[in-house]
Amino acid sequence: MRPLRLGMVGGGPGAGVAPAHRRAARMDGRFELVAGAFSRSADANRAMGGELGIAPDRVYRDFTAMAEAEARRGDGIECASIVTPNDTHAAASLAFIRKGIDVICDKPMAKSLSEALEVERAAAERGVLFALTHNFSAYPMVAEARHQVSSGELGAIRVVAVEYAQGTRNRLIEAEGDAKMAWRVDSAIAGPSTVLGDIGTHAHHLLRRMTGLEIESLAAELTTMVPGRVADDNAFVSLRFRGGARGQFWASMVAAGNGHGLRIRIFGEKASLHWDDERPDELLLRADNAPYRTLRRGEAYLCEAARYLSRTNAGIPEGYFGAFANIYSDAAEVIRARRDSRPPNPCASSFATAHDGVLGMAFIEAAVASHKNGGAWTAATLDARP
Amino acid sequence: MRPLRLGMVGGGPGAGVAPAHRRAARMDGRFELVAGAFSRSADANRAMGGELGIAPDRVYRDFTAMAEAEARRGDGIECASIVTPNDTHAAASLAFIRKGIDVICDKPMAKSLSEALEVERAAAERGVLFALTHNFSAYPMVAEARHQVSSGELGAIRVVAVEYAQGTRNRLIEAEGDAKMAWRVDSAIAGPSTVLGDIGTHAHHLLRRMTGLEIESLAAELTTMVPGRVADDNAFVSLRFRGGARGQFWASMVAAGNGHGLRIRIFGEKASLHWDDERPDELLLRADNAPYRTLRRGEAYLCEAARYLSRTNAGIPEGYFGAFANIYSDAAEVIRARRDSRPPNPCASSFATAHDGVLGMAFIEAAVASHKNGGAWTAATLDARP
Amino acid sequence: MRPLRLGMVGGGPGAGVAPAHRRAARMDGRFELVAGAFSRSADANRAMGGELGIAPDRVYRDFTAMAEAEARRGDGIECASIVTPNDTHAAASLAFIRKGIDVICDKPMAKSLSEALEVERAAAERGVLFALTHNFSAYPMVAEARHQVSSGELGAIRVVAVEYAQGTRNRLIEAEGDAKMAWRVDSAIAGPSTVLGDIGTHAHHLLRRMTGLEIESLAAELTTMVPGRVADDNAFVSLRFRGGARGQFWASMVAAGNGHGLRIRIFGEKASLHWDDERPDELLLRADNAPYRTLRRGEAYLCEAARYLSRTNAGIPEGYFGAFANIYSDAAEVIRARRDSRPPNPCASSFATAHDGVLGMAFIEAAVASHKNGGAWTAATLDARP
Amino acid sequence: MRPLRLGMVGGGPGAGVAPAHRRAARMDGRFELVAGAFSRSADANRAMGGELGIAPDRVYRDFTAMAEAEARRGDGIECASIVTPNDTHAAASLAFIRKGIDVICDKPMAKSLSEALEVERAAAERGVLFALTHNFSAYPMVAEARHQVSSGELGAIRVVAVEYAQGTRNRLIEAEGDAKMAWRVDSAIAGPSTVLGDIGTHAHHLLRRMTGLEIESLAAELTTMVPGRVADDNAFVSLRFRGGARGQFWASMVAAGNGHGLRIRIFGEKASLHWDDERPDELLLRADNAPYRTLRRGEAYLCEAARYLSRTNAGIPEGYFGAFANIYSDAAEVIRARRDSRPPNPCASSFATAHDGVLGMAFIEAAVASHKNGGAWTAATLDARP
Repeated sequence: MRPLRLGMVGGGPGAGVAPAHRRAARMDGRFELVAGAFSRSADANRAMGGELGIAPDRVYRDFTAMAEAEARRGDGIECASIVTPNDTHAAASLAFIRKGIDVICDKPMAKSLSEALEVERAAAERGVLFALTHNFSAYPMVAEARHQVSSGELGAIRVVAVEYAQGTRNRLIEAEGDAKMAWRVDSAIAGPSTVLGDIGTHAHHLLRRMTGLEIESLAAELTTMVPGRVADDNAFVSLRFRGGARGQFWASMVAAGNGHGLRIRIFGEKASLHWDDERPDELLLRADNAPYRTLRRGEAYLCEAARYLSRTNAGIPEGYFGAFANIYSDAAEVIRARRDSRPPNPCASSFATAHDGVLGMAFIEAAVASHKNGGAWTAATLDARP
Repeated sequence: MRPLRLGMVGGGPGAGVAPAHRRAARMDGRFELVAGAFSRSADANRAMGGELGIAPDRVYRDFTAMAEAEARRGDGIECASIVTPNDTHAAASLAFIRKGIDVICDKPMAKSLSEALEVERAAAERGVLFALTHNFSAYPMVAEARHQVSSGELGAIRVVAVEYAQGTRNRLIEAEGDAKMAWRVDSAIAGPSTVLGDIGTHAHHLLRRMTGLEIESLAAELTTMVPGRVADDNAFVSLRFRGGARGQFWASMVAAGNGHGLRIRIFGEKASLHWDDERPDELLLRADNAPYRTLRRGEAYLCEAARYLSRTNAGIPEGYFGAFANIYSDAAEVIRARRDSRPPNPCASSFATAHDGVLGMAFIEAAVASHKNGGAWTAATLDARP
Repeated sequence: MRPLRLGMVGGGPGAGVAPAHRRAARMDGRFELVAGAFSRSADANRAMGGELGIAPDRVYRDFTAMAEAEARRGDGIECASIVTPNDTHAAASLAFIRKGIDVICDKPMAKSLSEALEVERAAAERGVLFALTHNFSAYPMVAEARHQVSSGELGAIRVVAVEYAQGTRNRLIEAEGDAKMAWRVDSAIAGPSTVLGDIGTHAHHLLRRMTGLEIESLAAELTTMVPGRVADDNAFVSLRFRGGARGQFWASMVAAGNGHGLRIRIFGEKASLHWDDERPDELLLRADNAPYRTLRRGEAYLCEAARYLSRTNAGIPEGYFGAFANIYSDAAEVIRARRDSRPPNPCASSFATAHDGVLGMAFIEAAVASHKNGGAWTAATLDARP
Repeated sequence: MRPLRLGMVGGGPGAGVAPAHRRAARMDGRFELVAGAFSRSADANRAMGGELGIAPDRVYRDFTAMAEAEARRGDGIECASIVTPNDTHAAASLAFIRKGIDVICDKPMAKSLSEALEVERAAAERGVLFALTHNFSAYPMVAEARHQVSSGELGAIRVVAVEYAQGTRNRLIEAEGDAKMAWRVDSAIAGPSTVLGDIGTHAHHLLRRMTGLEIESLAAELTTMVPGRVADDNAFVSLRFRGGARGQFWASMVAAGNGHGLRIRIFGEKASLHWDDERPDELLLRADNAPYRTLRRGEAYLCEAARYLSRTNAGIPEGYFGAFANIYSDAAEVIRARRDSRPPNPCASSFATAHDGVLGMAFIEAAVASHKNGGAWTAATLDARP
């Protein structure tokens, strides 16, 4: 099967997440990178194009030029991968969407809820795929957790505790000249809450994906812990879900020594699920009056989606590369299916949708509003918005 | 060395925590149980006295009679252990304190802050020991954590995450006729917040003991998750500490499958500490840019207090019995030292003091006030009180 | 219920395991220590008697004097606890057995198989209890493992891997003047194989207790790793069991940094059990094509014996003290039952029997013989002996 | 940088390890698959070529035809990847080596020591790369372990315990028609010891790579546990290393419920290393009298090679795909360096060499000889061979 032609926006020399996108695109052989606008620096742009073996005439000045030119080619790109800093996610996405080109975009979806809504609308109107790379939710055992919840193994959910807490920014790194880090603590680029935009949205999506719950209202306490920092770097959010469940949310960049630190626990009437993305192949299921169970990726007893998203036997860790590749390969499946006028494999759903991205932005904006209002309970649903 | 003479209030047949107190008193051979008022049922009282080999004339109708009679004997009890339900902790304590008899009391200290303050004052006036059995804080590695914090290993503390979340009451057990459980979900006996009084105070004391931080204000969300239950059973509390640190607190009785569930993490500028009371012999110390370290009970590199509170080699778990016995043995050391007119061993401090108990009650009352006020930030210090 | 009167042989100041025996005897209130021959030093003997509150006339010069005198008293000891170095276990046991006094003895049973057989015969003839304190096999989850094997959960056992590997003697500690350690590496006191006698027998008993398998033959490689040491300090033994199962056994005193290091895994046709005595409350049960299960001490789903041997709720670790106290309390139950002419509670079987001790000595002697014979396969059964 | 042109032998539809090789080749973009002889079935061969987008004229009947034709092309393959069953590894390797084409070959190297020696000689004579995919030794933390040993952190090694024990074949799967499994338990294809050839050599290479020790002699017990099976399925091997260290080796296909099961522990005079390939990003370093340390992949404190072999931050698991890709990318680096007449990066050494493969075959043959000789100690060095 011919790989799909992919173009990339961002991902110049030294970029953070772009190499992971490129490995993810390559791993299952379903994409071929043929065009790019990698850097605003012409030199860096050209160098990266050369390193990646891109034909010089398909290394573009910017995403606008790339969308224009590629849309005109017979062998133009079939999908664009957006891996720029947060503030251009929406604009770059729109440039390709409006040309009818499918988009895979790094998170968060946009800098604001209104931007995100615009992207969502545009993708719906043009009928193109918008896939958001909440890659930590693309592990097979996240799908299994969703299955366990849906199939009633836990009973009604009562409490969710989710956290994404790292120590990567517990010094004033923005003063230390690391370009990869600098923009992430600059709210002009990263959005209204740096800690929620940069990492909090991963935790937000993970909890929604695993539980199927929607947040009704929240009370937030955003703090800046590192002296001299302008942006926030720690967020505690209390959650009330539709249906009465409660949640505790923590996102932090100053949790020294906490590792990667994305963890979730879901407590239902009868049992609980526990998942830690540092051990993504294990899902703990703990019911009252029963031995603790550890479900393992790669086993035949898992749900169909968990098996679909997996490539190796149980006990052989697939890690981050497997999860990230799931998103690209699932996007390829959706794109191919549309061309073949067939329904895509229903398990090919490891990516977040435009609507997921919109809700992520709504969450950030509600949290910022609550914080500004002394931590008051604040509606986080879309219909509560004007 | 002659064991101290101990009397016990509560702990009749079927009582929950009393056997643990008796084992703790016995284990190091520093107490001899010689008197008791075990049950309000005369038959049960007599039966328990017989089972424990107590002379019949020292099995008392109630704590008042016991305090009176034992105070008059030349060989009267030297210490009273209070293991009744919460609502009589203060009254029973006062009965012995006023006779000049030292007291070891189960937590929480009282049903209200004002009661707790009365006990604290009375103990101070009579110069007797009031030792509160926050036994989960009596593990050696809790002392080590305090030492690591004090010695600056973490730098200034920024974030504390503490939780005590169990699933033991995730059904309506109060309707199932278990006497041991019934009173615990009855706020008339258990106090204004059942979940905070019954288990939350353990987490509250643990965080204060490990960090040395004091809570300035808090925002609480108390919930009743089990249909038909009168009392609360889940509490989320956001904390602001003096000096600017922030905290996230969770106490729950409906965390299905969560085990014993007392865990704490302390994040400082440079490193963090992680402790789980299901593995009490391990303390994780995680600094940036250094291998994770696991400190183990029983090792020579630990601080003096951690070594003092330990009895076996590293790798041989001491468990709950060791921690609980620490409290009794430390109380014995303090009582003996006073009689010998010498300072007690400074490491003999595994128990909570009356002041710790008072702050526990202040925490509960502030949390209830915040909750009633829509989760508003509420002062939790004693000096903020009228 | 009146506690049984206990006498102790060994356990003078600085002794290693004696305090654990005393705590174990006290913890459940079923024994009262009333006599002792604690040390061959008259001063140390007297001092320890005083510290333990023993009447001076019941502090004896040696075990012979103690057995004589106590047997003549109306209120003489009802049970003797032997906690001396290995070389006097048999002689001391025999002194009490021959007076009809029940015995609880630290492991290994004797210095040789023939001594052990003599003790076994004597105890059988006098009808007294001989309980060997293989305390690491007295954890509740060891009983549960036995139950899982017996009930066929694993299918026929194929492979057993057991190890007891510590680093406590990975320096030439016998040259450093630690009396507690010195005799343990002296084969004149510790027996023909120090590493097998001192710790290997614990692993040997654990594997027999959990699996019910008996060793048919073995091939051993005993080594001395620490330069200057006379005794062996590392043993690898390959095992063939009756019925065809195979085993791998490792005992070591030079496994630097391995913690307490007693671990066992049992692999059957369908599933395996995994247990580590540093986390004694957990038993892992892993079947093919099923989630891994962790069985936890304190849960209602465990077998009757595992519940009988437990005192606290799941998640609250009982540790070493609980396991050791099980042996004393079970011995008390057996002694009481015999006096009451009733069968003892069948769950009261946490101690090793004289026959277990005999097999332990047979194992050591077979291993030594195999090693001397270049690691040749050597019969380890009693009936293979002349 | 242009990717190297790769051809593949084996890896038709349903093949086991071939997809992992293809992903490994693709992931870092350093190879492009352009030719293949995927299957002896012409249909399957053609189908796989089509699926992989290989030009039809470069899908070959067999490896001989492929070596011939590709060697003649100007744009012929620059490297051959051999992923057939064990019995053709040597013949296929030789076909390419003799044409001067570099080879990446799945393990074990050959069916016999003499075959392996022939391949080693041929590669040396032609000056081509022979890289053996002991992929479980290609994890970054394996390199770190080597570094810790080399730098003396453990002192002299005393004991090594290594195991690779799985339950994948604990039923008579060869009777169940799974082609992927059938040949692996057929010693005609898998070699003289199935369990050692198929998985044991991975453990053997891992221990050599981590410790740098060479085996002097061994005593083996090979067993067939599953009724009806012809090949062996469980191996216990005692090891004596040059210099006096001892080792315990276990390879099994009948360890039900043991997961992937490749684990190693290395005990030195001062400290030990512990590694489990199910958690490949963690390396435990445990010294006496010091906190346990957990070294984590991705951290700056690791040795240069460990950092070189890693792609993501600590806490984000790279898993199997990362390790496998290391082998391909390191092979590419060695090939490129030779063409560029520069030394390759010295860290690019995650693959096993021909000499490693030869020693793996010597190990198997010595173990089989020992077993046939009643478990007698048998030399395992090359110079002990005629």
